[in-house]
Amino acid sequence: MSTDTSLPIRTVTDPDIKATYAVDQSVGATAPSQFEVVRARDLEDVVEVLRWAHETRTPVVPQGARSSLTGSSVAIEAGVVLNTEGLDAISTVDPLEALAVVGPGVITKDLKDAAAAAGLFYPPDPASSAFCTIGGNVATNAGGLCCVKYGVTADYVRALQVVLPGGEVIRTGHRTAKGVAGLDLTGLFVGSEGTLGVITEVTTRLVPAPDPALTVLATFGSLEAAGRAIVALRLERHLPSLVELLDRAAVAAVQSLADYGFPQDCEAVLLVQSDRPGHTADDVQRYAAVLAEAGAVDVAVADDAAEADLLLAGRRALSPALEAKGPRYLEDVCVPVGRLTELIRSGQEVAARHGLEIVMAGHAGDGNLHPSIFFDADDASSRARAHQAFTEIITAALRLGGTITGEHGIGTLKAPWLAEELGERELERQRAVKALFDPRGILNPGRVYWS
Amino acid sequence: MSTDTSLPIRTVTDPDIKATYAVDQSVGATAPSQFEVVRARDLEDVVEVLRWAHETRTPVVPQGARSSLTGSSVAIEAGVVLNTEGLDAISTVDPLEALAVVGPGVITKDLKDAAAAAGLFYPPDPASSAFCTIGGNVATNAGGLCCVKYGVTADYVRALQVVLPGGEVIRTGHRTAKGVAGLDLTGLFVGSEGTLGVITEVTTRLVPAPDPALTVLATFGSLEAAGRAIVALRLERHLPSLVELLDRAAVAAVQSLADYGFPQDCEAVLLVQSDRPGHTADDVQRYAAVLAEAGAVDVAVADDAAEADLLLAGRRALSPALEAKGPRYLEDVCVPVGRLTELIRSGQEVAARHGLEIVMAGHAGDGNLHPSIFFDADDASSRARAHQAFTEIITAALRLGGTITGEHGIGTLKAPWLAEELGERELERQRAVKALFDPRGILNPGRVYWS
Repeated sequence: MSTDTSLPIRTVTDPDIKATYAVDQSVGATAPSQFEVVRARDLEDVVEVLRWAHETRTPVVPQGARSSLTGSSVAIEAGVVLNTEGLDAISTVDPLEALAVVGPGVITKDLKDAAAAAGLFYPPDPASSAFCTIGGNVATNAGGLCCVKYGVTADYVRALQVVLPGGEVIRTGHRTAKGVAGLDLTGLFVGSEGTLGVITEVTTRLVPAPDPALTVLATFGSLEAAGRAIVALRLERHLPSLVELLDRAAVAAVQSLADYGFPQDCEAVLLVQSDRPGHTADDVQRYAAVLAEAGAVDVAVADDAAEADLLLAGRRALSPALEAKGPRYLEDVCVPVGRLTELIRSGQEVAARHGLEIVMAGHAGDGNLHPSIFFDADDASSRARAHQAFTEIITAALRLGGTITGEHGIGTLKAPWLAEELGERELERQRAVKALFDPRGILNPGRVYWS
Repeated sequence: MSTDTSLPIRTVTDPDIKATYAVDQSVGATAPSQFEVVRARDLEDVVEVLRWAHETRTPVVPQGARSSLTGSSVAIEAGVVLNTEGLDAISTVDPLEALAVVGPGVITKDLKDAAAAAGLFYPPDPASSAFCTIGGNVATNAGGLCCVKYGVTADYVRALQVVLPGGEVIRTGHRTAKGVAGLDLTGLFVGSEGTLGVITEVTTRLVPAPDPALTVLATFGSLEAAGRAIVALRLERHLPSLVELLDRAAVAAVQSLADYGFPQDCEAVLLVQSDRPGHTADDVQRYAAVLAEAGAVDVAVADDAAEADLLLAGRRALSPALEAKGPRYLEDVCVPVGRLTELIRSGQEVAARHGLEIVMAGHAGDGNLHPSIFFDADDASSRARAHQAFTEIITAALRLGGTITGEHGIGTLKAPWLAEELGERELERQRAVKALFDPRGILNPGRVYWS
């Protein structure tokens, strides 16, 4: 074993640049006092870092665009940030085999665009798709706005290339349409948040291109009426490609950035889309009727793709709009769709009891809610109450048969609750699985499994 | 540790009944001289057997309908067959959450029918769906006739209940539409062929019901022309829901059972279906044009669902029809769709060189071919040549970027080739994963990992 403990690879030395790699978008993320940053340029760089870090037992934080909301890509004290943004090649888009092969640093939107250029579609669509990376999407099993019809990232990952601690390069899955030779480890890595290995190549399934989506926007006098509409939409034979909910405060936040065309005199807005080839106009008319039947106060069909795009841009502006409102705990609970209204009611009750503003929004068609729990950063009591509210919404989601995280992952933010969802025994099993791949525990230590 | 080594549960004693649980549908399957059979009636039976077997280090063969073609459910000498056909409850079909919860002993067709009764669709469709079970489908990641449009069983398994050696009952995955709390072990169990645990409950995703399929049948003067048609169909924006290939001998075998309406004066037949709501007639007309353009000699659109059903019944009769022809090695290789014609050519060359009849058929839209390599059971040379041909087709598939098994699994039949596909190092890793769940190696020992 070498006694040389200095990183055998070029690191970022400029302190300002280095600082940008220290944190992600999670609440309260701060840089550690000492860490290194490696911007990998190729597979060999990743191998080199993981060989060295394994040997020297140095913590490694795999990192992409740092859009994580859970702290999973924040630098660790005395550790190395291994950023893979530079592995951004789209090496294959194959219409016949209906797959793409891309580096982990490819921006999600760039893969979507490359697929579209070949007449195909890569559905996963986190709200951050303009700047998040495929590597991060795989590491968190990202979802987003498409999932009510198209599912999540895991549904599109066919094969991976991964570098393990020690530097071994492995391949999981298969490129053929079917393949059952041995265990499929792919699903283990999807959603593992950089705790098992570093993803260096992703083979994704692609599907035929849909039509440009048309949108219907409905306003509701109560969140409960919106909840009834969501249930009715889920029972449609032709599922919407998007069912997004924003409450009054969410709409106000979006409209405060720019006029995206959202009406502000209502308790809740639902955005509903169809992208079904040849039938987008039929479908949105049908959805409009369903929304009206469920009790919508006003229903407006976006007449053309431009208007539909503007509304969707408004939805995508929600994250920065809420970010601008001030510090918040951002929830990501997911419950059965039939329990969503109860979850929202619980959240409202929590807000009232703690005297907090909690903005409700999310991927309603999946039962995946993102309440934003705002607090005053200068008021310790406000922050403590917000954290208590955060805890209570998690508890409510579990009570309703849901999960503590639908798509953001565990990171450091939710690590204290993982055992509550899985049980200690299952958590022990998962730690044992991790130890198979990372026996020295160098990858994202202290995160997810929280031991 | 108990010194009582007798099974603490009722076993099958009637020798004739017991014999039916000794073998599956794999070539040359024979009963061992000594084994026990337990027909589990509930979860507790499975727990009891796995507790006892772990303690006594007794081999256990998890088993469903014994439709395996690879020997994965054949009884093991001095072992216990643990049959879960009796766990056949369909406890939930939930249109709102779009899922079903079923026991492993549910017949695939029964789940499909239960979904259909609720206006939903469970797509996985092995040719054996009338008698195979969901537990077996999950254990092999079964595919079948739907996969060109709908994917495989793994794409529909959302959560599992599994009993591990020692009797621990675990749950994997989630019932919500999204969920990323911790590692998802579900994908490890899907396709693990009874080597990691015994599946006792399956939560499947359901999708909206398609229309009853219409069918177009095309005849070709050469397998190569059929190959061109397959490629053209894969590039259609509205993917067929089925693209099946049968060569001349396969058609003759089917027609020898009954008149299913297949024309016999051609080198190959393609069956192509559309189930797209509202567009089955448009689509099959379009596919007919694509097939003609690719060089089909004759193209016939089944005018109604009854005619389409008859053709599909013919396709489903292929397995028994070929079975009736005599002993055979049944292949299950899968290659990129663009290499399928090369694979077929390789198979024909192998047949000619060894003086064997090799019947070509399979799920052409997935590149998943099932050559049947016939031999004379009374002629050792014929059997040896057939086995050599079997080997050579596997080698050809690997050379073409394919896999040794698309959907049947490894079992005992393909175990000698798994290392060739995965490499010894990956195989060692997979054995280590197995050891985490089954540290004493009691589940299907000697199968799949072949150590």
